Amino acid sequence: MLRSHLGALPSEIRHLCGLHFGWWNDDGVTLGTPPKGKFIRAALTLLACRSVGSEPNAAYPAATAVELLHNASLLHDDIIDGDLVRRGRPALWAAKGIPAALLAGDALFFASVQMLASSTEARRTTSALLAAAQTLIEGEYRDVLLESAAEAGERQVLSVAAGKTGELLACACELGAIAGGAQPERVSHLRSFGRNLGIAFQCADDIVGIWGDPAITGKPAYSDLRQRKLSMPVAVTMAGRTSQAQTLRALYSKKSPLSDEECKRAIGIIEQTDAREATLRKVRRHTADAVYSLSLAHPEPIPAAELTALANQLINRDR
Amino acid sequence: MLRSHLGALPSEIRHLCGLHFGWWNDDGVTLGTPPKGKFIRAALTLLACRSVGSEPNAAYPAATAVELLHNASLLHDDIIDGDLVRRGRPALWAAKGIPAALLAGDALFFASVQMLASSTEARRTTSALLAAAQTLIEGEYRDVLLESAAEAGERQVLSVAAGKTGELLACACELGAIAGGAQPERVSHLRSFGRNLGIAFQCADDIVGIWGDPAITGKPAYSDLRQRKLSMPVAVTMAGRTSQAQTLRALYSKKSPLSDEECKRAIGIIEQTDAREATLRKVRRHTADAVYSLSLAHPEPIPAAELTALANQLINRDR
Repeated sequence: MLRSHLGALPSEIRHLCGLHFGWWNDDGVTLGTPPKGKFIRAALTLLACRSVGSEPNAAYPAATAVELLHNASLLHDDIIDGDLVRRGRPALWAAKGIPAALLAGDALFFASVQMLASSTEARRTTSALLAAAQTLIEGEYRDVLLESAAEAGERQVLSVAAGKTGELLACACELGAIAGGAQPERVSHLRSFGRNLGIAFQCADDIVGIWGDPAITGKPAYSDLRQRKLSMPVAVTMAGRTSQAQTLRALYSKKSPLSDEECKRAIGIIEQTDAREATLRKVRRHTADAVYSLSLAHPEPIPAAELTALANQLINRDR
Repeated sequence: MLRSHLGALPSEIRHLCGLHFGWWNDDGVTLGTPPKGKFIRAALTLLACRSVGSEPNAAYPAATAVELLHNASLLHDDIIDGDLVRRGRPALWAAKGIPAALLAGDALFFASVQMLASSTEARRTTSALLAAAQTLIEGEYRDVLLESAAEAGERQVLSVAAGKTGELLACACELGAIAGGAQPERVSHLRSFGRNLGIAFQCADDIVGIWGDPAITGKPAYSDLRQRKLSMPVAVTMAGRTSQAQTLRALYSKKSPLSDEECKRAIGIIEQTDAREATLRKVRRHTADAVYSLSLAHPEPIPAAELTALANQLINRDR
């Protein structure tokens, strides 16, 4: 559905979008390997729709729209963060230049709205998608502001996690519930499920970003520390008036990426505090909040079990 | 209406949008001078609405949406082109960085769609806006591809003019007509009026970009030649197998901006051909096509006269 919808795009931009999704190479030759990408958001949308008692096909357009929104924001995020690799391939901006990736992202943003035009509950889903997009953009900008700072508090880090990761998963569940014809209260509980799941996921990701095994994550060791990312364990360590807080702040005030030696020092400092355990507590708390919100939505039992399984898979992940 | 609509945006991004529009400075202090900006597109939308016999207030949301779309594309265009100045102030990306301007543009794109949600004829106007946005994005990408080339044909240059400038003016008129409750045929004629007006305007702008008086345009002399812009007079000169075509191509194959001396040589070469007159003929032809399309829409006489006056003002301009 994603692919056929993008077939309606003008040709030059369609080519760029296909490059991003890994459908073809720059010569237009179809790639044999199935494109990577877990379509977690689409899965959430379809399960949310089933959880309110509807057939999943009612939510196909919504699931596609959410993936389009997600991919548009990836295209722009990679430009913003200067990330060179996406799904094991060069990021589009790295391969085709910033203008190409910027415009392909714009096209996917509009394509995500277009996707909903002829769906059931088009008005409600469109309005929800647009509101989520604005929150997402604000979250991304707060992340930009955060990255230019040398330190951050837990609340700021949590607010970025809610705005960036939480909002998209919230939107995925919300759109599925709306497409399934759910009443506003039920929609709101499923939205809350997705939002909390997103925050839990981001905190879990922050743990992997520091303590993850490079052999499993596919990323260099200590990648988040190296880039002086203000992730949750770092914010927790910096919170107190402790000597650890002072030392980590001093390390992070450097203007360039941390060396291996500095990363090891940073990890040593963080491990002197209870930052890892405190971050894990946040994962557990937001997971519990997510599960509670799900129960308030009185979901159908089978999709509810699948949503819970998907949530656990997302949070207890190695990469 | 523009300002009150953007009041609903999250605060950090709203601040960036206000900076772009010149509503306040970076400290949040409201600026006393009225922001520059001619709101030509909004004027077209309101006049198109009146031309089909409706009160202009029916088209206020559409006019606002068109200006938002236009400003979003300016924000992204300035990043793409590396333009440092917009409306006499630093371009947002130059003042606040690429991430800020990229995200502010994204927010205005979504705001333009949100603007239409509660308007009359919301479904039709939204669908028209989204389709125009995709054409606009493709036009911008073709322009990017063109700029990396050392030469271009008239058809390519015309296609970019139609995609970038033509499409936005087409959309402005189309949305006004739809908001005014016009039937599809009448909408289509007003769309065609806007599209041809946009192409004529772009060709006229290309003449100003080479022969415009710096004292009037406010831009440096020969600005388009200096940046080796593939504008219409340049494409016409390059078209033949003449010695002028060869010389201009050789000048344009340079990788850096042209010097004063080279600009003077380029203008001398172009003036040996009939490129200026040929470009003027295109201005006249597309203006005539625009006026003919307007007549086919059987417009109300007073707004029709105002549309024609606005068209003339756009095309016979000094800057």
